[in-house]
This record gives sequence, C-alpha cells and structure tokens, in this order.
Amino acid sequence: MSSEATEERVLAAVAERRELVNDAIDEDLPLAPPERLYEAARYLLKAGGKRLRPTVSLLAAEAIADVEPLSTDYRSFPALEGDDIDVMAAAVSLEVIQSFTLIHDDIMDDDDLRRGVPAVHKAYDTETAILAGDTLYSKAFEIMTETGARPENGLGAMRMLASTCTQICEGQALDVQFESETEVLPEEYLDMVEHKTAVLYGAAAAIPAILLGADDDVVEALYNYGIDSGRAFQIQDDVLDLTVLSDKLGKQRGSDLVEDKETLITLHARQQGVDVDGLVDGERIEDVSEDEIDVAVERLRAVGSIEYARQTARDLTEQSKRRLEVLPDNEARQLLCDIADYLVTRGY
Amino acid sequence: MSSEATEERVLAAVAERRELVNDAIDEDLPLAPPERLYEAARYLLKAGGKRLRPTVSLLAAEAIADVEPLSTDYRSFPALEGDDIDVMAAAVSLEVIQSFTLIHDDIMDDDDLRRGVPAVHKAYDTETAILAGDTLYSKAFEIMTETGARPENGLGAMRMLASTCTQICEGQALDVQFESETEVLPEEYLDMVEHKTAVLYGAAAAIPAILLGADDDVVEALYNYGIDSGRAFQIQDDVLDLTVLSDKLGKQRGSDLVEDKETLITLHARQQGVDVDGLVDGERIEDVSEDEIDVAVERLRAVGSIEYARQTARDLTEQSKRRLEVLPDNEARQLLCDIADYLVTRGY
Repeated sequence: MSSEATEERVLAAVAERRELVNDAIDEDLPLAPPERLYEAARYLLKAGGKRLRPTVSLLAAEAIADVEPLSTDYRSFPALEGDDIDVMAAAVSLEVIQSFTLIHDDIMDDDDLRRGVPAVHKAYDTETAILAGDTLYSKAFEIMTETGARPENGLGAMRMLASTCTQICEGQALDVQFESETEVLPEEYLDMVEHKTAVLYGAAAAIPAILLGADDDVVEALYNYGIDSGRAFQIQDDVLDLTVLSDKLGKQRGSDLVEDKETLITLHARQQGVDVDGLVDGERIEDVSEDEIDVAVERLRAVGSIEYARQTARDLTEQSKRRLEVLPDNEARQLLCDIADYLVTRGY
Repeated sequence: MSSEATEERVLAAVAERRELVNDAIDEDLPLAPPERLYEAARYLLKAGGKRLRPTVSLLAAEAIADVEPLSTDYRSFPALEGDDIDVMAAAVSLEVIQSFTLIHDDIMDDDDLRRGVPAVHKAYDTETAILAGDTLYSKAFEIMTETGARPENGLGAMRMLASTCTQICEGQALDVQFESETEVLPEEYLDMVEHKTAVLYGAAAAIPAILLGADDDVVEALYNYGIDSGRAFQIQDDVLDLTVLSDKLGKQRGSDLVEDKETLITLHARQQGVDVDGLVDGERIEDVSEDEIDVAVERLRAVGSIEYARQTARDLTEQSKRRLEVLPDNEARQLLCDIADYLVTRGY
C-alpha cells in the first residue's frame, strides 16, 4: 500500500476517536476547585494534540478482543474473562501523563511555545506549571485505578504506568547528560530514546492487554510493538529536522545541529570521522544560513548517516509490525501496523 | 502523663525505627544510573528527617495486628488474612512522596535551605530538581506496588496514594491562592491545611490498614486519626512561629506575620476586628524588630486568637485519639496517641 493511503487510514482512525477521547478527558479530568490549578492542568490537553497514543490503546483493545473497530463502547469493553473494562480511562490516563511530561519538559528546556500556544509556564507561571504537572501526574494514576479491571490486572496496569513514568524521567536525565558528553554510542542514544519517548508508546499498547487479561506473551508483544515503533518515531523526528525544508517543518531546519544535540545521525557521522561540531558555525539558529545547513546536510548524506538513520527506523518499524503477529488478524491489528508505518513515513 | 514523658516515648519510638527506615529507603530507592538524577532524588532523603510518617505507618500496622512493637519483621508482616505484607515498603513510599513534595515546594517558594542543607534546586539546579521530584513521584508508586498485599488491597493502597497526591497539590494551590485573597474563612484555612499537610498523615495511618486487610471502619478511623492530628500539627506550627523565641526556633519568629501568610490565628484575629495587615510594618523579616513582633503577638494574644488556635489544635488532638478506639488496646495504639499529643505539645 502506498504511504499516502496508509497516512489517510491512520489519520481517519485517529480522527474517528479524537472526539471520544476529548470527551473522556473532560469527564475524567473535569474543571474542579481550585479552578486556576485545574485550568492550568487542562490547558495543554485542551489546546489540541492528535491523540495518537490513546488511539493506539483503543486499537490494541479492539485487536486483542477481536472486535470490529468502533463497534464497542470503550467505557465498558469486554475483557477476555467477561468483565467490562473502561479502556478509555486507560487511554486518558496515558494522554494525561504525556501532557504532564510536556509541561515539565517545557519548563526545563525553557521552551515558549507548544502546540501553537504559549507553554503552560508562560501562559501562567513556573510555579503553577510545576504544580499543574504534578496534579496531572497523580490524576493519571487515579484515573488508571478506575478501569473496573480485575484487581490483579488493575495493579499490573498501575505497575507498568509507574515504571513507565520512572523511565521517562530517566530518559530526560540522559538526554540532558548527553549534551555535555563528547562520546555517546549509538546504542546509548537508542537507549535514551527508548526511555524518553518509546516507553509511553509501549505502555499505551500493552496496558489494555493487561487490563483485558491477555496472556503475558500478548502483553509483551504489544509492549515491544510500542517500543520499536516509538524508537522509529524519534529517529524519524531527527531525520525530519534535517531533511524537511524549513517552510514545511514550521521552523528552520537543522536546529538539532545548531544546538549540538546528538542524534543517531550525528553519532553515526562521528563514527565515520566527520567533525560534527564544526559542521555549522553559530550558537543560535538565527545565526546560521540555509546554505550552511544545506552543506552540512549534504556532508551527512555523503557519509551515509542520514540513510543509516532512515534504515534503522525502517528496520524498527518492520520489527514492530512483526510483533503483532501474536494477535488475531483483524482490522484493528492492521491499523496498528499502519500507525507504525505512518510514524516513519509521515512527511513532517 | 507529662508532655516531657510523652515526648520522650515518641522520640524513642521514632529513633528505634529510623535506622530500619533509612536502610529500607536505600534498598527501595538505590543509587542507579543515571546517577546524577538519583543522587539528586536521594539527596534530601539522605539529609535526614525524623521519619515521623513512616513511624506512624509501622505503628499502625502493629496496632492493627495487635503485636508487640518491634517484634515482627516489617518486610514480612502478617496480614489479617495470613499473607505476608511488606509494610515497610508502604512506609518508604510515603516518605518518598513527602520528599518529592518538599523538593518541588522549595522550587515554588524559592527557599534556599531545607533540613540544614541547600535545597535540591540550589545544590543542583532547577531542571534537575524538577526531574528529581518527578522521579521520586513515580518511584513511590512503584514501591507501593511491591508490598505483596492481595491485589484488591494493593490496588486500594494505590488509589489512596494517588488521591493523597492530588489533594497535596490542591492544598499547595489553595495556599498560594490565599496569599492574594483578602477574606479567607477559618474553615477554608482548615480545608487547605487538610489538603496540604494532613492527608499524608491520613494515608500514612490508613494505607497499612488497607494492605493488611482491615475492615473499612478501621481504615477510616486511622485515616481520620491522621487527618485530625495532621491538622493539629499544622496549627501548632503556626502557633510556634509566633510564640517560640527566635533563638530556640532557629529563625526569627513572626515570619508568617511579616510575609502576610494567613493562619488560623490571623483569620481569628480578623474576625475580632484586628487590623492584621497593620500589625507589623516591613516586607522582609530583617526589617522588623523583635519588639515589634512582641507587640503584635501581645495584641493577638489579647483578643484570644492564639488561645483559639491552641484550643482548636488540642480539640483536634483529642478527637484524633478517640478515633483509635476501634483498634485493640495495645502499646502501638498508645504510641500513636502519644504521637498525636507530641505533635501539639512539642516546643519547636
């Protein structure tokens, strides 16, 4: 299938569930007193977002239960043992965690904008943003306790949620640490990416399996599907930062190079003997011309670093799709494969 | 019993358990890679602390199980249904949550010192402190999943932990909000204190009851014991800020008055018609003389506001002790009563 058709199917699957997810966020995280706190906590969630991770969760449930997509109420979804499970609550919980990490990351990186609106610490203030993030954190755990799953499954979901959050923090710490390290191995970079980004995709895919009472090998396969495609997603992000023309990217391309951010591409180039630190001159993206970026990208392309990253992402995507072979062959499973493809074929 | 004897018994009970708690913190929150992150996360926990909340948890377990204090391994404590429960993990989890809230509070209040050492955001930096707090947050949930309790009880403990964290955030937001409000009712103040401080005592007392499989009325009684004594503790803190001489308090007394921080005392005084905002002149504690504070305290005493706060704290303490009458009459229960007394009789 062409990548345009895949993208179309994925965007339709996401769009079909977005309103359901948004309504559920409003229900599970209502505006409550103290209102300023909850306004700040909800601000970024209300500002938009594709809802890709919740969509992964909902499709995973449908694939496991082998039901027609969108044929079943996500709030009372049939578990394999016959109980009714609120898989939507799990999907919301993970989106809430994602929002918490963005709020705190933006404070740490002092980023002013997010999803086209001021970051929470700019729209409010740093104190409120820290507290809003902290509130989302515990709210996500509260919401995850309310799925109606059997206690052992509910506890298993909580365990995965907690370890996922720990790993995200570890990944963020590694990312910061790598900025001041001169030699990072590609494996170390991939490990950082796994912690910082991929584990949340892993949890989004695996937690519904835990809640529905699926076998351990299904839980593990879905987790690894998320890890592999999450890693591929991040690598593709790094490729896009260099290869997509600035007007399409919505920001000047090459920002990672200017900011001396290590990616799989720069790490590979270093191994080929490229003086990565000397590729572009200037501390801020405004000081670097498009031409200079063109030359740098050409150099990275010439030594095979961009293709190496692309190929690594493609290999991870193929691996992620093979993970799903433990599931029944159905439309939801196919959509999960499409999402994996979409994460590395999307243009920007 | 005299308050000196009570204090002695409480400090002995805490001291007897402190090393066990500290060892358990090291076991459950080891120094792991990325090491700088975990160093920062462990920094405040290693800097000391009475371990009063963990002691409450351990004594609650002993009181419920009706065993001789310190006669049973806290790592494999007999549940009422016969399983072995790691109540120490629950105690550690709550201490870890307490540490997370202190780290983020110090950033929000820009406090430089904590427990006699630089606050984490001063010893490291703000980014690391935010991330260290976030790591402790999820670690506390991870640790709480490892108690070995029956899944329904384990999940119940997680639910209480999550809602406790949410309430602490709400309390902190209310505290900030009250600084800019002109009229706060004493009930609203007590509600804020309950959220910000008392719920963690409530959870410390009640979570062991949940894990051990105690009846709902026992869980509720222990929770309310913690709420009542936690509220009393905070009110006593406000009294001490005004009434203890500066050299004994370790900081100049009256800081709450200078910083226009509302307390039960100032709110009562306002109701008596006192111009609280005009009591002391000056924005910073260094600008205000001891004499000026003496006059202000005398005024608050004359209209009965200090005695009103003291009496409210005493009433809450008596109520908290009566809550424990559902438990077997044993030494651990007596020590929990002593702790409630100690929280309002401690000199500073």
